[in-house]
Amino acid sequence: MSEPVARTRPPYIAVIGDGDPRGPDSNRILEWAEEVGQDLARGGAVVVTGGLGGVMRAASRGAAGVGGETIGILPGADPAEANEFVRTPIATGLGVARNLVVVTSSDAVVAVGGKHGTLSEIGLALRMGRSVVALSSWRVESEGRLGGPRIHRARDPREAAALALRLAREGPQQPT
Amino acid sequence: MSEPVARTRPPYIAVIGDGDPRGPDSNRILEWAEEVGQDLARGGAVVVTGGLGGVMRAASRGAAGVGGETIGILPGADPAEANEFVRTPIATGLGVARNLVVVTSSDAVVAVGGKHGTLSEIGLALRMGRSVVALSSWRVESEGRLGGPRIHRARDPREAAALALRLAREGPQQPT
Amino acid sequence: MSEPVARTRPPYIAVIGDGDPRGPDSNRILEWAEEVGQDLARGGAVVVTGGLGGVMRAASRGAAGVGGETIGILPGADPAEANEFVRTPIATGLGVARNLVVVTSSDAVVAVGGKHGTLSEIGLALRMGRSVVALSSWRVESEGRLGGPRIHRARDPREAAALALRLAREGPQQPT
Amino acid sequence: MSEPVARTRPPYIAVIGDGDPRGPDSNRILEWAEEVGQDLARGGAVVVTGGLGGVMRAASRGAAGVGGETIGILPGADPAEANEFVRTPIATGLGVARNLVVVTSSDAVVAVGGKHGTLSEIGLALRMGRSVVALSSWRVESEGRLGGPRIHRARDPREAAALALRLAREGPQQPT
Repeated sequence: MSEPVARTRPPYIAVIGDGDPRGPDSNRILEWAEEVGQDLARGGAVVVTGGLGGVMRAASRGAAGVGGETIGILPGADPAEANEFVRTPIATGLGVARNLVVVTSSDAVVAVGGKHGTLSEIGLALRMGRSVVALSSWRVESEGRLGGPRIHRARDPREAAALALRLAREGPQQPT
Repeated sequence: MSEPVARTRPPYIAVIGDGDPRGPDSNRILEWAEEVGQDLARGGAVVVTGGLGGVMRAASRGAAGVGGETIGILPGADPAEANEFVRTPIATGLGVARNLVVVTSSDAVVAVGGKHGTLSEIGLALRMGRSVVALSSWRVESEGRLGGPRIHRARDPREAAALALRLAREGPQQPT
Repeated sequence: MSEPVARTRPPYIAVIGDGDPRGPDSNRILEWAEEVGQDLARGGAVVVTGGLGGVMRAASRGAAGVGGETIGILPGADPAEANEFVRTPIATGLGVARNLVVVTSSDAVVAVGGKHGTLSEIGLALRMGRSVVALSSWRVESEGRLGGPRIHRARDPREAAALALRLAREGPQQPT
Repeated sequence: MSEPVARTRPPYIAVIGDGDPRGPDSNRILEWAEEVGQDLARGGAVVVTGGLGGVMRAASRGAAGVGGETIGILPGADPAEANEFVRTPIATGLGVARNLVVVTSSDAVVAVGGKHGTLSEIGLALRMGRSVVALSSWRVESEGRLGGPRIHRARDPREAAALALRLAREGPQQPT
């Protein structure tokens, strides 16, 4: 009677970045995040963010503006802290540890700009087998050679979204 | 342009309980969980569970069967572990610590039966200011007198769902 | 050359309870917590707490006063938040989720008084297979019959410490 | 009567890296980790690790061999999983989320080699305001300019330990 729903799950793609970008690049970063959110939603993805301001709000706004689904994984205990473009707020009460949930709940991750919190999410994403697309974000190089998921660099929002949609469809790699 | 979505958020209500109930009561427990899920969805709530089997699956099935929204907060890193009635799986990678997210992301909690994991979720719910409705579940008494959220006992699924919907609308209490 | 150290590990026993007890019973609760800490340390246990005030500070003070080892598992990121009787502070940055670490890092748990946070730790302890000794604390009853670890009631600090030392030596039960 | 103990806390320094290094460099990495542990302990630091094998075991072995204190923050629930050079095992039950506790409980962090888990710990350390010393480890560059804690590169174990001891004494920076 009750029809299963999970089989048709769309790709979940996280957009991570600074919650309060400043400096000369901040407008470009926010515009890019909004375009990434828009393109991801147009491509059929659910956009996952940390639910707060800055890049998180811009990406959610982009996705919501074209009718996309948005999930916000909040650090605090109050769902009302989510920005107004988050459709499904998940209040975790975990503080910084919620960063792990943002990336683990997603099939791929796009980093737009970002500070140390973003770097930690990039590391956690790779650790959990999720590939990362970096747009004007951290450059990270290992001294050794590592298999598994990796960081792909994109030149603009369109390329970032297209890459992430493709990587999400390939599914997670093995955690490493 | 982009229209805010969060203002109209429906109540989120968690249904918690045994992932693999056994013994003479197990059929009744699963039927009750399904009815609770159904009534919560009919009342307009999003049903949040831990996303796995037993009571979690029964409650999700009840909600999905009447067209309701279902969220599954999973302990592992693979969204495919969610039961087939979860519409929005959140893979946390947190193990047991995901119990905190199940209750914190909800406005009220219904416990149907349950073992030690359920007791921990009841405690965490109260700690986070969420009221709990107990249906054939733990009896818990403090030696002192405590203010804040409390455990309400219900006699049947209908009463449990009605109580939870009312408590969720009152909103969370102060964490204690 | 380097000699292994872990083989001779003493029992780790958590003392949990209210961080700021008030009301007519509060003096008795704090005295009892201090006596429990003292007896546990005399019995050779390392005393684990949440590292803050109230029952946590009293138990640490009792243990430190007789030369015992004390560990404080803090919710915040600053080890200086530990009370002055904690020898080994572990700043977790986890907020409420640190409750899981307090009980999981211990072989047995003594609850002295306590509010909702303590109830959540009792539930988490049982869930992780750790037995609990309750001293003037929560009364908890399941409607069904459960195997595995359980809550033992003690009448005074001496009995609580003796019970906990015995339970810790029996080792953890299976998580349930 | 009871004498405060926390005031004289020694620096806590985490050594992070691969739990199972392979390939041509693995012997050098393990030797370096052991030397770092040794030098940190000689310098008066408590050595914090994730408590398991590879770099974690080598660093603990180095510290224990010169009489130093060692703490192991374990992902699982069983303290017996700690390597034999961990004096104080903290079983967290948190899985990958224990990485946050490893770095937050420390005043500074030394990364020796390492894969994606190590990168996540470097990011989390910086996020929590802890400075990082990298020895044959990740190269990480932001496109923007960031204040706060940073990654210092060391050429050999001696330099890494000396740098970390100095950074730990300066104390944590502001989380960013």
